[in-house]
Amino acid sequence: MERVWLLDTTLRDGTQAEGISLTVTDKLRIAKKLDDLGIAYIEGGFPAANPKDQEFFRRARTELVLRHAKLAAFGSTRRPSVRAEDDEGLRALLASGAPVVTIVGKAWDFHVHEALRVSLEQNLDMISDTVAFLKRHGREVIFDAEHFFDGYRHNPEYAVATLQAAEAAGVDWVTLCDTNGGSLPGQVAEVVRAVRSRVKVPIGIHTHNDGDLAVANTLAAVEEGATMVHGTINGIGERCGNANLISIIPNLELKLRRPCLPTPDHLRLLTETARYVCEIANLVPHSYQPFVGHSAFAHKGGIHVSAISRNPETYEHIPPELVGNTRRVLVSELSGLSNLLHRAQEMGLDTSGKTEEMRELLQEIKRMEYEGYQFEGAEASQELLLLRAFGDYKEAFEVLSMRVVASQHSGSDITAEAIVKLAVGGQTVHTVAEGNGPVNALDNALRKAIQPFYPAIETMHLTDYKVRVLDEKEGTAAKVRVLIESTDGHQVWRTVGVSENVIEASWEALVDSIQYFLLCVAKAQPAAV
Amino acid sequence: MERVWLLDTTLRDGTQAEGISLTVTDKLRIAKKLDDLGIAYIEGGFPAANPKDQEFFRRARTELVLRHAKLAAFGSTRRPSVRAEDDEGLRALLASGAPVVTIVGKAWDFHVHEALRVSLEQNLDMISDTVAFLKRHGREVIFDAEHFFDGYRHNPEYAVATLQAAEAAGVDWVTLCDTNGGSLPGQVAEVVRAVRSRVKVPIGIHTHNDGDLAVANTLAAVEEGATMVHGTINGIGERCGNANLISIIPNLELKLRRPCLPTPDHLRLLTETARYVCEIANLVPHSYQPFVGHSAFAHKGGIHVSAISRNPETYEHIPPELVGNTRRVLVSELSGLSNLLHRAQEMGLDTSGKTEEMRELLQEIKRMEYEGYQFEGAEASQELLLLRAFGDYKEAFEVLSMRVVASQHSGSDITAEAIVKLAVGGQTVHTVAEGNGPVNALDNALRKAIQPFYPAIETMHLTDYKVRVLDEKEGTAAKVRVLIESTDGHQVWRTVGVSENVIEASWEALVDSIQYFLLCVAKAQPAAV
Repeated sequence: MERVWLLDTTLRDGTQAEGISLTVTDKLRIAKKLDDLGIAYIEGGFPAANPKDQEFFRRARTELVLRHAKLAAFGSTRRPSVRAEDDEGLRALLASGAPVVTIVGKAWDFHVHEALRVSLEQNLDMISDTVAFLKRHGREVIFDAEHFFDGYRHNPEYAVATLQAAEAAGVDWVTLCDTNGGSLPGQVAEVVRAVRSRVKVPIGIHTHNDGDLAVANTLAAVEEGATMVHGTINGIGERCGNANLISIIPNLELKLRRPCLPTPDHLRLLTETARYVCEIANLVPHSYQPFVGHSAFAHKGGIHVSAISRNPETYEHIPPELVGNTRRVLVSELSGLSNLLHRAQEMGLDTSGKTEEMRELLQEIKRMEYEGYQFEGAEASQELLLLRAFGDYKEAFEVLSMRVVASQHSGSDITAEAIVKLAVGGQTVHTVAEGNGPVNALDNALRKAIQPFYPAIETMHLTDYKVRVLDEKEGTAAKVRVLIESTDGHQVWRTVGVSENVIEASWEALVDSIQYFLLCVAKAQPAAV
Repeated sequence: MERVWLLDTTLRDGTQAEGISLTVTDKLRIAKKLDDLGIAYIEGGFPAANPKDQEFFRRARTELVLRHAKLAAFGSTRRPSVRAEDDEGLRALLASGAPVVTIVGKAWDFHVHEALRVSLEQNLDMISDTVAFLKRHGREVIFDAEHFFDGYRHNPEYAVATLQAAEAAGVDWVTLCDTNGGSLPGQVAEVVRAVRSRVKVPIGIHTHNDGDLAVANTLAAVEEGATMVHGTINGIGERCGNANLISIIPNLELKLRRPCLPTPDHLRLLTETARYVCEIANLVPHSYQPFVGHSAFAHKGGIHVSAISRNPETYEHIPPELVGNTRRVLVSELSGLSNLLHRAQEMGLDTSGKTEEMRELLQEIKRMEYEGYQFEGAEASQELLLLRAFGDYKEAFEVLSMRVVASQHSGSDITAEAIVKLAVGGQTVHTVAEGNGPVNALDNALRKAIQPFYPAIETMHLTDYKVRVLDEKEGTAAKVRVLIESTDGHQVWRTVGVSENVIEASWEALVDSIQYFLLCVAKAQPAAV
């Protein structure tokens, strides 16, 4: 079957979503992840409209090594009264250095009059000039025909004429956009079929989810011959979002048997990719999300569970491992115990004859998870729990007390000061330090206390600090979970803390992080002082 | 056009969702709301499997007065070795008193062998006996043919035979179920078309969302002649959920022009119904949800906004008020002056002749967004910025100083104490309060200071508190953005704060939230003290 070419626009159309704001570094990290998944085109931004996007393309040239994907820059057709070579927007597209350019233009006569305020002929000239100019500069050019389906309903001849103008100018792809997201699959199929008889250039489809039909509309277009699909990870985008590639990819690969990733194995990265983008964009993953959600293969009903254990095909449309997800049978303690034993063995702990203690520890972990802890992203905290239960582990220091004061006087900057008292290396140490905020002050005071005993602490630093509010509806009395990532330049480890108090949760994760470091690196021989 | 009959199964299939648990009172409240919306059938529960559901039907008989809906009770075909009149499950259905009964039976030969472990003929007898028994007792009977589409793919003759067995026994409806949720719209359309030529009884459609196609599959079935639609509010249900009635209803009414509610006016209750069910089920509303989401008609891109203000049809597939939602224009780094002017006009501010000041304010907003502020989720903070720039606005109180102390002594719980000094109502007020954490302590101290002057503060409380770490790679010295949502029981507003110090960011959002409240409610007349 013919390949379908995916264009991911998470970094461009996706950032139009309410509440989404990505830094340039975030965008580079996501681009890398999209390339790993095997996306063919990554639309990185709109350089003429956004200086941050210019910086993205500038940094991408040196920092981003792509194996599968080509970068695309997005822009509009030239302005009405300007030659293509003098149009600033088009110059910004060339300056981006992206080998592929996506150009949006008007396909609905109503918009040409109402929004652009030029004649129908002028709009066709703008399209063909723009495409020809970019082709002369050696770019692969995609023409996004905005509002194509609405336009086709009102004036099919004109809508098709915009595609033909782009085609005549040498465009590589024309994309039919359901910009307002209100079309139905039957309408999309009919229009794509009609367009295929009028143009020879390959056709792309770009849908929005306002009618909750973006995935179905995309598949309908592919079934009628579209060979490029635009969408975003998890469907993020303006209003109700774009077509969700995370749903489209497995439907193409597994249901329609249309390859769209470099190999079938790439599909196994789907769940990881979806969750990674949530993490970077600070979106709570949607538990019920098709294919990749935490609940997507979770079986709750008793009848379902017993049927599933005989034959998973009874209540699963696909095997979850094909998309990197896992089956979960809710209310199952046995799997927990075997996981925990596996982990202890990996750490070299002797758990023989300690099944009862393991069961108790498992209960403790379940209680902690119920309270909001999450050990999947905090293996170091989990190892410390196991060591405290089963190892002859002695912590390198003990916290006797801590105090943080943050204060502000009319208009001046806030100050933060932390005081900690530790038992370390047989002594009691009392230190004070300032910081940018309370947690930074605590970090500084802790290091100041430990440094004389364990100079290696200088090599360790925090690389990531995440705060997630659990039970958000409780307002400022809600619990928070803090995840801290640390490194000593060689290895990376993660710890977790949970509390109604953001300082306490941070402190817990911070102390665990340093304890773990001292355990691994120093093997806990205090230096002589 | 022929009416489509809606069957809502939020209270039965919806409760199979992971993390959903409804009390009997919750279920009665939701049933009332579904009836207000004009749903034709409400499937209230599975009385044979669940004593709580028996209680629901018992209480419904006296407490629930329905104007539009009929209650349906759900159960299985009789057990293999038992006569219908001796089957406990069927007796529980009759005892429920529900005038409508939904009976699920096997339609996939594989399941008859694998899960039920009876012969194909025995299964047909079970179906017809069960239907005939319930019809003899005067019930309206719906036969849910489980796994119909998977069954039809493997053994079409047998799948159809199960429907014919129900039809011959006098069933009122047969429902084709895509139980595993893996079918595609084209497959559904083809099967419904084939079935219509084999049975005369009206056909229902029941889909699940495992392929992200439940809404499209439902519409495909209706277009081929199905006249009953099963689904749940917001699509909640096992794994990835059921077909989402909140998306299906407006697609039927507005796109396919098929009436499914008592009057077109009932459609205006859609948004309220969706949010109500989230509230009762303790689910966070999905901001990007089609039709009813907070972001569903939110416009962010500058080009979009200037077009929308001329003619909303340019970037909206339907007018939001038809489904009880509202248009929102977001002011963000991607947007321009037109968004800001639109917003000021909505607030009733006179901006005539102040284009330069508006431009300056826009620059200020862009600078703040560059620093990490995000106003699109924090309209109240944005309104305060506009008021400070253009209104004759005086803040209800001024912060003179604040201090927070968080401390912990070896092993004991952490304590948090906040001290604030305000100028309010012509006086200087100095208060101290404790809290679960530093932000909660600040909230308490602030309220304590303000309450004597503005007793209305009692009616206001925080409903959401979000922390996002920006530039997470900076570790504990990174900037954080805090978003706070508050309500007084009538309206909801959101404010934002940004700082390297989580306490300062929270404090900023907290102070804005209270200032905004005092501005709106009290119109800032301090009470005499």
